[in-house]
Amino acid sequence: MTKILKMGMIGGGPGSMIGDIHRITATASGKAKLVCGAFSSTKEKSIEKGKELGLDENRIYESYSEMIKKEALLDEDKRIDFVTIVTPNFLHFEPAKLALEAGFHVICDKPLAFDYNEALQFEKVVEKAKGHFAMTYTYKGYPLLEKAKEIIDSGHLGDLRKVKVDYSQGWLSQLIEAEGHKQASWRTNPEKSGKGGTIADIGTHAFNLLESVSGLKVKSLMADVSILVPGRKIDDDTNVLLEMDNGAKGYLSSSQICTGEDQDLSVKIYGSKASLIWNHNQPNLITIKYPDFKEESIKGLDKELIEENEVNLPGHSSYFTEAFQRIYEGFFDTIQNTNNKTDFVKANIKDGVRDMLFIEKAIQSSNEKKWIKL
Amino acid sequence: MTKILKMGMIGGGPGSMIGDIHRITATASGKAKLVCGAFSSTKEKSIEKGKELGLDENRIYESYSEMIKKEALLDEDKRIDFVTIVTPNFLHFEPAKLALEAGFHVICDKPLAFDYNEALQFEKVVEKAKGHFAMTYTYKGYPLLEKAKEIIDSGHLGDLRKVKVDYSQGWLSQLIEAEGHKQASWRTNPEKSGKGGTIADIGTHAFNLLESVSGLKVKSLMADVSILVPGRKIDDDTNVLLEMDNGAKGYLSSSQICTGEDQDLSVKIYGSKASLIWNHNQPNLITIKYPDFKEESIKGLDKELIEENEVNLPGHSSYFTEAFQRIYEGFFDTIQNTNNKTDFVKANIKDGVRDMLFIEKAIQSSNEKKWIKL
Amino acid sequence: MTKILKMGMIGGGPGSMIGDIHRITATASGKAKLVCGAFSSTKEKSIEKGKELGLDENRIYESYSEMIKKEALLDEDKRIDFVTIVTPNFLHFEPAKLALEAGFHVICDKPLAFDYNEALQFEKVVEKAKGHFAMTYTYKGYPLLEKAKEIIDSGHLGDLRKVKVDYSQGWLSQLIEAEGHKQASWRTNPEKSGKGGTIADIGTHAFNLLESVSGLKVKSLMADVSILVPGRKIDDDTNVLLEMDNGAKGYLSSSQICTGEDQDLSVKIYGSKASLIWNHNQPNLITIKYPDFKEESIKGLDKELIEENEVNLPGHSSYFTEAFQRIYEGFFDTIQNTNNKTDFVKANIKDGVRDMLFIEKAIQSSNEKKWIKL
Amino acid sequence: MTKILKMGMIGGGPGSMIGDIHRITATASGKAKLVCGAFSSTKEKSIEKGKELGLDENRIYESYSEMIKKEALLDEDKRIDFVTIVTPNFLHFEPAKLALEAGFHVICDKPLAFDYNEALQFEKVVEKAKGHFAMTYTYKGYPLLEKAKEIIDSGHLGDLRKVKVDYSQGWLSQLIEAEGHKQASWRTNPEKSGKGGTIADIGTHAFNLLESVSGLKVKSLMADVSILVPGRKIDDDTNVLLEMDNGAKGYLSSSQICTGEDQDLSVKIYGSKASLIWNHNQPNLITIKYPDFKEESIKGLDKELIEENEVNLPGHSSYFTEAFQRIYEGFFDTIQNTNNKTDFVKANIKDGVRDMLFIEKAIQSSNEKKWIKL
Repeated sequence: MTKILKMGMIGGGPGSMIGDIHRITATASGKAKLVCGAFSSTKEKSIEKGKELGLDENRIYESYSEMIKKEALLDEDKRIDFVTIVTPNFLHFEPAKLALEAGFHVICDKPLAFDYNEALQFEKVVEKAKGHFAMTYTYKGYPLLEKAKEIIDSGHLGDLRKVKVDYSQGWLSQLIEAEGHKQASWRTNPEKSGKGGTIADIGTHAFNLLESVSGLKVKSLMADVSILVPGRKIDDDTNVLLEMDNGAKGYLSSSQICTGEDQDLSVKIYGSKASLIWNHNQPNLITIKYPDFKEESIKGLDKELIEENEVNLPGHSSYFTEAFQRIYEGFFDTIQNTNNKTDFVKANIKDGVRDMLFIEKAIQSSNEKKWIKL
Repeated sequence: MTKILKMGMIGGGPGSMIGDIHRITATASGKAKLVCGAFSSTKEKSIEKGKELGLDENRIYESYSEMIKKEALLDEDKRIDFVTIVTPNFLHFEPAKLALEAGFHVICDKPLAFDYNEALQFEKVVEKAKGHFAMTYTYKGYPLLEKAKEIIDSGHLGDLRKVKVDYSQGWLSQLIEAEGHKQASWRTNPEKSGKGGTIADIGTHAFNLLESVSGLKVKSLMADVSILVPGRKIDDDTNVLLEMDNGAKGYLSSSQICTGEDQDLSVKIYGSKASLIWNHNQPNLITIKYPDFKEESIKGLDKELIEENEVNLPGHSSYFTEAFQRIYEGFFDTIQNTNNKTDFVKANIKDGVRDMLFIEKAIQSSNEKKWIKL
Repeated sequence: MTKILKMGMIGGGPGSMIGDIHRITATASGKAKLVCGAFSSTKEKSIEKGKELGLDENRIYESYSEMIKKEALLDEDKRIDFVTIVTPNFLHFEPAKLALEAGFHVICDKPLAFDYNEALQFEKVVEKAKGHFAMTYTYKGYPLLEKAKEIIDSGHLGDLRKVKVDYSQGWLSQLIEAEGHKQASWRTNPEKSGKGGTIADIGTHAFNLLESVSGLKVKSLMADVSILVPGRKIDDDTNVLLEMDNGAKGYLSSSQICTGEDQDLSVKIYGSKASLIWNHNQPNLITIKYPDFKEESIKGLDKELIEENEVNLPGHSSYFTEAFQRIYEGFFDTIQNTNNKTDFVKANIKDGVRDMLFIEKAIQSSNEKKWIKL
Repeated sequence: MTKILKMGMIGGGPGSMIGDIHRITATASGKAKLVCGAFSSTKEKSIEKGKELGLDENRIYESYSEMIKKEALLDEDKRIDFVTIVTPNFLHFEPAKLALEAGFHVICDKPLAFDYNEALQFEKVVEKAKGHFAMTYTYKGYPLLEKAKEIIDSGHLGDLRKVKVDYSQGWLSQLIEAEGHKQASWRTNPEKSGKGGTIADIGTHAFNLLESVSGLKVKSLMADVSILVPGRKIDDDTNVLLEMDNGAKGYLSSSQICTGEDQDLSVKIYGSKASLIWNHNQPNLITIKYPDFKEESIKGLDKELIEENEVNLPGHSSYFTEAFQRIYEGFFDTIQNTNNKTDFVKANIKDGVRDMLFIEKAIQSSNEKKWIKL
């Protein structure tokens, strides 16, 4: 029997959304439990959250540096095995560095870093570290996207010719940061979010999803990165023409000002023999289309998927929290050196660095109004 | 600060699906934690599961009667506050009775009991008990169904005239109980499932959902309860004509032999001024239709819903696990005497008893081939 | 080269909807042209319509009896070949009888007759007639429904076990006949519509569609035929439990009071090996579902269908008018003794008589509250 | 009573698809009838088609120049009123010029001309002509797109910020021109199609639809026009970044190599107060989305639309052929100087010229890899 991993959390204080998701999905399987945290830069808030979660008071820390220092002094059977980082983007690198240098494993939210330069430093830290480093790209946890990749890798679509990925949300269609909306405030603040706004927040999801599923790399791009809501300080809309490394063409669009759109994310990959469509509206469905206009749908309840993914109920499908759970299981897999999950769910430092490169180059292309190699 | 509730589980051993859902969603909020369990009637399996979950060995029990007896002897700050029952239908009443008589709160899966007669006994036990009793009707946890009820209660649809509810699954389209499929085996075994098969398993969901959301009661029904897969020992398909207490007409259909259907559940309520449609394919969406063919859609991300339901992420919606979590929060609400959730999510013994009456009368109507009053 | 058929129309005066559809789709192919008509029981209206259509004034008739008498006296190369009857239900039999007895072919809207008794007389007239008699069941003209029948006939679904057909409209959700709505007025008037209202108007579509596509016959039924809008004089809602001749079970529902529903028609047929779903929302799509939850879609643009149905454009599908056109081509096929279309599109007197039987028995079952053999 | 207009057709010989659509929809209302044609450049084919349609033999012409010359010599009550041109793109200008100069009205398929230069010449001919000139942009005939324009013009969406239009087909995903497919052959032949392939064939639909519905003009664009199927001689895929004249951003994509896509056309317009979505899958539906994630749907059966569009049946919606019919009615409106239809359906020479400019500039932008003003 493998040991239960001990988890420490940095960030995720009162009012955080993503912190709860990480904690619940990391611990749902019984393979990990939360033992400590530095939940907020405000001491009282960190304590409030830690108590709410029933932690020992002496393991609710006032700062991430205190947490890492003190945890490192505990006995091996008591101290944390890994750290989950769920702070805003500008606060990923420092705590990750401390934790990795102290010998802990680290799993971190995306985008990786403040900018591409910091991402390169980050990569060096990870390369030297003893512990493992993983990232939570939600969509890599969706079983049907993993299935999509398998289908594409098998050659079933023939030569890939055209790609489309569009991720549109509407929650920033109004200038809600001016009204004190917490999530909007840091995400639209260049000092906390980094160089990119929407392009970093969800454009990177679109980019990572496209490259992960298609197996292609973006070779060059022509981007238009805009601020479309008056008064905003950072981009909220991006449209990009793409040339892939095999010659395929296409576009990527990401926006948070598409009024009324909740989570309109789709990826469409067109090949010479068949095409593959996935849409977040029905996340456990892939549609494959053929030249004679016949179509096949594959659902999450495919027998193979049920077998390999025991948590599925008959009649209930894999969504967001399940995706997160699979990502954590991939991470535990790496840590425990078991082999239960594929590489697909295990996003790592390379995904993070490449995303930061995408942000950098898209902004440059938009500013210089020209095609740029990636 | 409210205390963290201590939970004990009966059932949910290795291979159980629903046990994990109960544990995860009950404990996700940090308001409860699992402290003990009698997970299986097989001692080894109970221990295996308890260890996997990291429980103290002396609180992993061999039987539910042992568990209730021993927990009752512990100090109040140590012993369980409530019991979750996730055993097959024939094993709901006995453990619930023991637990309630020992003074514990109980939350139990549906359908309530083996048959209507047992349900009536169950009701008496609950009435006399000091502890609270709740049931987990999943669909009562869906925020949009609660919203649907509010809309209907407000009179927005005018006089209700027609109702349709259809719950079709396909996982029993083959005789998989003959191949040893665990879930299928007990659910199609009249000795474990009770008088009804599919009608009990999902017909009751459809029935409860219809009455809960519409606010109407079924006045009389004409049912056709069938076994459609050769070799099966219990009903797998039911179609029912309905007359509601306000004169509305309609139908209810539930089936587990609809080949290829995953979870095709919909409820449609037609009024003189407007109609309301909900479909499990898009569980966080209500559509309202008007006589001039205009339509309105309400999504789970409605600002009000976000405010009242903090766990929601922008761009992510409330599904199955979230529904369960809300049901548990309703239960904790009752226990702690707080008032955070509406009655809608708090299914109780009356829901359970009425469901058993529905099963009884539908089977009688089918056998006697006539309309029967409920 | 086949000759161009000469068409005469009975009914379809100013304000008629269906008359234009018949004329346009009958003549679209160039295989027929309209040469005369008795468009209304009001002389002026008949003349107005005939002039609008550019007919010779001496072939615009004041009554259908005048039309048939005078056309019969014309030379063969001048007189009509066939009559299209698009009057209200109570006025189908008389003109059809006259036309058939005069030796003309007749094509008639559904439902066939005023009641079952009249339908039986109708059948005798057709049997003795020299000319051909056809009916326009719109849905028999949909290429994908014909394809559906082929798939089912091939045994691809295995044993058929469950059927569902639901046809819901909302245009009679208000008592619009009281406000003088022309279509509503005759359709809700038992003297013009016949014994059945909604059950005759669209219930027969549902019934014919179910039997045509599945290849099964309804063996017995248990119906609930209701008037749900206060003040209405004829049924506007019907729900029926079905037992098919092979033992399959299911339901049929038809309603015109489903507020806000436009044309919500679907047929679902579940077999032991696969299921088939067709929905009027996407009329050129069939979905086939398998036990492992994989799905296939077949679209109208299937190469075979394009070849056999030349009018289709790439990228445009077969809908209502195209369906009508195919039905007329089936009729011309019969008349000209060519063999271009299958029997599927050629509804005949037997379809009409069986529909009238369905109406008769459903109403009887509803009144007597019992299962009735068909 | 207005006179029945006499129609002559140029093009539309055996095997043509669009010719039949023009003839049927132009004549469906009884307001026009076909009296002559020059259906093919091959004499025998022209005669074959003319006979099939039952035309007088002396009005089936061998060439369009013969037709226009001879028709002009007939008496006014006999000769044609207007000419319909349905030849390939390179054969629009010459016959239109002859017909207009002979005093006839002309209605012509899109795209207008072989290239932008020819379009400018065309414009001069139209300006000098006595007769009217109209174009058949199918999508301008869709009632719901006209409704969309009304909604946007009313200011209901607030400031328009983002636009997306995507028109994807799959019928050219294989090199079917190499197998002699008639439609594919001329459309992929630069000598017949003109400078643009897919961008001319359907990109212009997307462009015209976007500008017509939004009321915005494209100010500058950055295009990537590609040949993606090996062996093809003309573009089959185009992706364009857009800047609109009010500062809105967005993209336009058109492709005929999207394997398995039938007619995947959608337009999405996002404003500060609301957004509007139309999708060809459900052509009689507009969805309006609001910042609070509520949505409204407007259907073609909206009472107002029924009143103004008498051909609609309750329960049946306006699609492709209906759209064409409305366009012809707009044309007749212009000719007869009545005022039954809005300007929306009346595409004219300006639409045609602007489209040719779009093709010219998109290809230039793609070649020069830079943003270009329109």
